[in-house]
Amino acid sequence: MSKLVNMNLKLFLNELASSSPAPGGGSTAALAGALGAALSSMVCNLTIDKQGYEAVQHDIHEMRTQSEQLRKQLTELIDKDTEAFNEVMKALKMPKETDEQKEKRRTAMQTAFKHAADVPLTTARTCVQLMDIARVVAEKGNKNSISDAAVSALMAQAGVQAAILNVRINLGSIKDTTYTQHISTEIQTLLQTAMEKTSDILGIVEQSL
Amino acid sequence: MSKLVNMNLKLFLNELASSSPAPGGGSTAALAGALGAALSSMVCNLTIDKQGYEAVQHDIHEMRTQSEQLRKQLTELIDKDTEAFNEVMKALKMPKETDEQKEKRRTAMQTAFKHAADVPLTTARTCVQLMDIARVVAEKGNKNSISDAAVSALMAQAGVQAAILNVRINLGSIKDTTYTQHISTEIQTLLQTAMEKTSDILGIVEQSL
Repeated sequence: MSKLVNMNLKLFLNELASSSPAPGGGSTAALAGALGAALSSMVCNLTIDKQGYEAVQHDIHEMRTQSEQLRKQLTELIDKDTEAFNEVMKALKMPKETDEQKEKRRTAMQTAFKHAADVPLTTARTCVQLMDIARVVAEKGNKNSISDAAVSALMAQAGVQAAILNVRINLGSIKDTTYTQHISTEIQTLLQTAMEKTSDILGIVEQSL
Repeated sequence: MSKLVNMNLKLFLNELASSSPAPGGGSTAALAGALGAALSSMVCNLTIDKQGYEAVQHDIHEMRTQSEQLRKQLTELIDKDTEAFNEVMKALKMPKETDEQKEKRRTAMQTAFKHAADVPLTTARTCVQLMDIARVVAEKGNKNSISDAAVSALMAQAGVQAAILNVRINLGSIKDTTYTQHISTEIQTLLQTAMEKTSDILGIVEQSL
């Protein structure tokens, strides 16, 4: 299959809706984050060199650099999530006749499930980072585009929530309890942080609307 | 500009991040909804003709028809939102030398702002409709894809919240208070309904995870 990010929106939506389980919620989470990052960048671009925003130029330039970096990462995670899912499917289809084959398959599956949990975990972490940018953009960016700063945060929030569900789905198949306990704790923290940050940003926007 | 839905994901994200104010949060809201609809359709497709799901085939077929209909509408709203914004920009640039020109411009702007509020309002309404489908899909669909039903609801929720912000931004420029009061009441109801429905769906999914 060609890279998802090279598909047009219509085709990507068709692919998502199809009976193939990937792309699914994990790639969608990464796309939601990438959309959020693009919106923070847009507000920066609409603030740079604009009259009345002289005092924030340095900060906004810095925010644009950061949001473009996160957009790049989140865009890559769209395909990475589907690739990780396909690796799980590949491991599942490995032969399991002999004891040796069974052991090899078991190891491959555990590795694949861990990777399939790690990818949306990275998506969730990256979306939380994006919220710090969206906050500065909401506070200091062009007031005509303040709703776009809020939508940036909302997309990042949906990205975190969706990504975490995809982490949890995979945790259920991982036997390494040290790993699963560690990740479980991190996703709880990420989710709570994301909710607080989003609510904070929406509060800032509410004052300006 | 060519249609947004014919752009590949990378190019659409570039266009969104650019210094052009459209596409912005409104088109993103519609895309979030379309992604949500596609995921509900995917879970239906992964449930149809599957062993163990014989009893729900009729309902799931019905849900797929409905989610595909909503996906079509939400996909169209991606471009409609940007077109509506461009109409506002066009009206703003109309000549305003003579009294007649001023009056003509004023009328065109009011029409354009109402349309620019109506489009995201339709997005919000459609995303709320999608939640009723996501709920049935979460309850009756393939349990292996239950996280995708949840992500469907999360994308619909982000779509509602983002669309409503875009309605509100435009309401501020509309002089017809009968219209603005009517819409303000509706968006409050839509937002509350969306939050309740999403929380309900996430609760169902939580029991199965």
